[in-house]
Amino acid sequence: MWDRRTLSPRERFLRACRREPVDQVPVWLMRQAGRYMPEYQAVRAGRSFLELCKSPELCRDVALQPIRAFGLEIAIVFSDILLPAEAMGCDLVFDEDGPKIRNPVRDRAQVEALRDFDAAAATPWPAQALALTAAALGPDRPVIGFCGAPFTLACYMIEGRGSRNYENTKRMLYGAPETLHLLLERLTDNLVGYVEDQIAAGATAVQIFDSWAGCLTREDYIAFAHPYTKKLVQRLARHDVPIISFVNGCAHVLDVMVDSGAQVLSIDECVDPAIARSIAGDKVAIQGNMDPTALLATPAVAERETRKNLEAFGHGRGHVFNLGSGILKWTPPECVHACVKAVQGWS
Amino acid sequence: MWDRRTLSPRERFLRACRREPVDQVPVWLMRQAGRYMPEYQAVRAGRSFLELCKSPELCRDVALQPIRAFGLEIAIVFSDILLPAEAMGCDLVFDEDGPKIRNPVRDRAQVEALRDFDAAAATPWPAQALALTAAALGPDRPVIGFCGAPFTLACYMIEGRGSRNYENTKRMLYGAPETLHLLLERLTDNLVGYVEDQIAAGATAVQIFDSWAGCLTREDYIAFAHPYTKKLVQRLARHDVPIISFVNGCAHVLDVMVDSGAQVLSIDECVDPAIARSIAGDKVAIQGNMDPTALLATPAVAERETRKNLEAFGHGRGHVFNLGSGILKWTPPECVHACVKAVQGWS
Repeated sequence: MWDRRTLSPRERFLRACRREPVDQVPVWLMRQAGRYMPEYQAVRAGRSFLELCKSPELCRDVALQPIRAFGLEIAIVFSDILLPAEAMGCDLVFDEDGPKIRNPVRDRAQVEALRDFDAAAATPWPAQALALTAAALGPDRPVIGFCGAPFTLACYMIEGRGSRNYENTKRMLYGAPETLHLLLERLTDNLVGYVEDQIAAGATAVQIFDSWAGCLTREDYIAFAHPYTKKLVQRLARHDVPIISFVNGCAHVLDVMVDSGAQVLSIDECVDPAIARSIAGDKVAIQGNMDPTALLATPAVAERETRKNLEAFGHGRGHVFNLGSGILKWTPPECVHACVKAVQGWS
Repeated sequence: MWDRRTLSPRERFLRACRREPVDQVPVWLMRQAGRYMPEYQAVRAGRSFLELCKSPELCRDVALQPIRAFGLEIAIVFSDILLPAEAMGCDLVFDEDGPKIRNPVRDRAQVEALRDFDAAAATPWPAQALALTAAALGPDRPVIGFCGAPFTLACYMIEGRGSRNYENTKRMLYGAPETLHLLLERLTDNLVGYVEDQIAAGATAVQIFDSWAGCLTREDYIAFAHPYTKKLVQRLARHDVPIISFVNGCAHVLDVMVDSGAQVLSIDECVDPAIARSIAGDKVAIQGNMDPTALLATPAVAERETRKNLEAFGHGRGHVFNLGSGILKWTPPECVHACVKAVQGWS
């Protein structure tokens, strides 16, 4: 139906997001710029992670690394989902275990004490990095902007660090739900401008990462995560930029996510692609969902598993190839290369 | 249809497992004997966890603690799922972070070097502890035996410790699947006798814990977890003891699990009870699935959430009340008490 690769990468990606026919499945990989790349490690050496996130030129440089190394054609701005939390007053640090918030938000007074922020003044780096990345790539190649979903940001702010059981968040959810709703409301309000600045800087699409909402029961997802993501999507709708909604651990709420207003549903690796397709129907495109651990073995395994995942999605419209969650730091770059080539060579 | 509490706790539990009418929803809680109880901490003081697991009298004592403290009527043998791994040759230790296997199994030679074991000789403690617990409770009160599912045990043996991404297991799964199948086969063979000894010691039912199979894609669950659990269930079928199959993170494979041959499906908290009921149909009973974090706030919250969970299951047959996963160590005992009372007082 199309000659091979007649579309620009930007058109290809946008058409796939809109479930229009394409000449090839577009591909990007969550955390495609990161610790598994020696080039990235070289930029990080002697710098804190937060220092990197606040250096738009360096953010551009690392965002471009996987584009150059693997022939990827879609970039995602290099940043961190916690910058808005910092702008609201969280004392954010990164150590070897990941992010920490030294003043976690545990009660209503602490929620009320958070600041509303103007992104351009308080945390301008993501939009600046996005503009620089877009300028380097030129108008034909897409750059994705992103933010954390309100629920995932609330979780981080309440827990103050990575968590296995989210006990502080859950204690608030079950014991003081109105406090959690207030926090979610405030986060949603503040994220609108934060994302809009990235759109103004040239974002081709925006992904909302709900990395932690998989810890919620279905009932609680419907009460505490979905409405705020949906509200954020609605308030961004006038910009006519596709929104990608990602929930890690989404199998039990896929049918709810379909109704978020986002044009693209990004699914984790546990979900069967055919089941996701049938739930999505003709309402949304699907992004995903190869198991990131399938990139840990050899390039031959990576190629085989990539093809299997593509086959599982079938040749219908509306598929953006990606992993089900981010690339792991132990991933051999040659496996990433084999994966990208397998998508680009697939027909 | 029944006068209140005309059945013995044993009859009540067995009838619920078989989807026959009961006078009250039976209740037990995963990890009901554990660190959240001061009585348990007192027994653990000055002893390693493994020492406790190998002292049948002490195992009986701690298994009885929640029965006495909360008026629970169903006990589960106190033991650890990793004892069979130790009996097969794993060098098992427990430290403050949990279990460690100092000689993890990473290749075919290491799988082949594992020992087959006779449970009565190599790891007699669980059956002994079960017999003592059953003797203390008398014939009217059920005692559940248990084992880890082949996949979860394989995961522990390969990783050597708790894991976030299971990268060693997945590397084997994708890169050397025949080695993983051999390990799973050997585990299944050895678990049969291990469970049979618990049945001979008086187990009323047996739960198979697949705590880590939720990390698998649906396709890989069907290839690497389900067939071995199913084989284990088949080989135990002649004993006419209900088998409960628990997978943590099961939303994407519920319909597969229904076909394991187990009489009871134990579901995690993420799954909507009504959806689980509809998938289970009249084939299996359901155990679960209150969120264990709903016990972290106050007794009033625990009671409210318990009732909500019971309502969500409806008043149909074939429900064993439980949590969706184990009690957390920060749980106030008075919340557990409120939960148990709410189930026992529900109608």
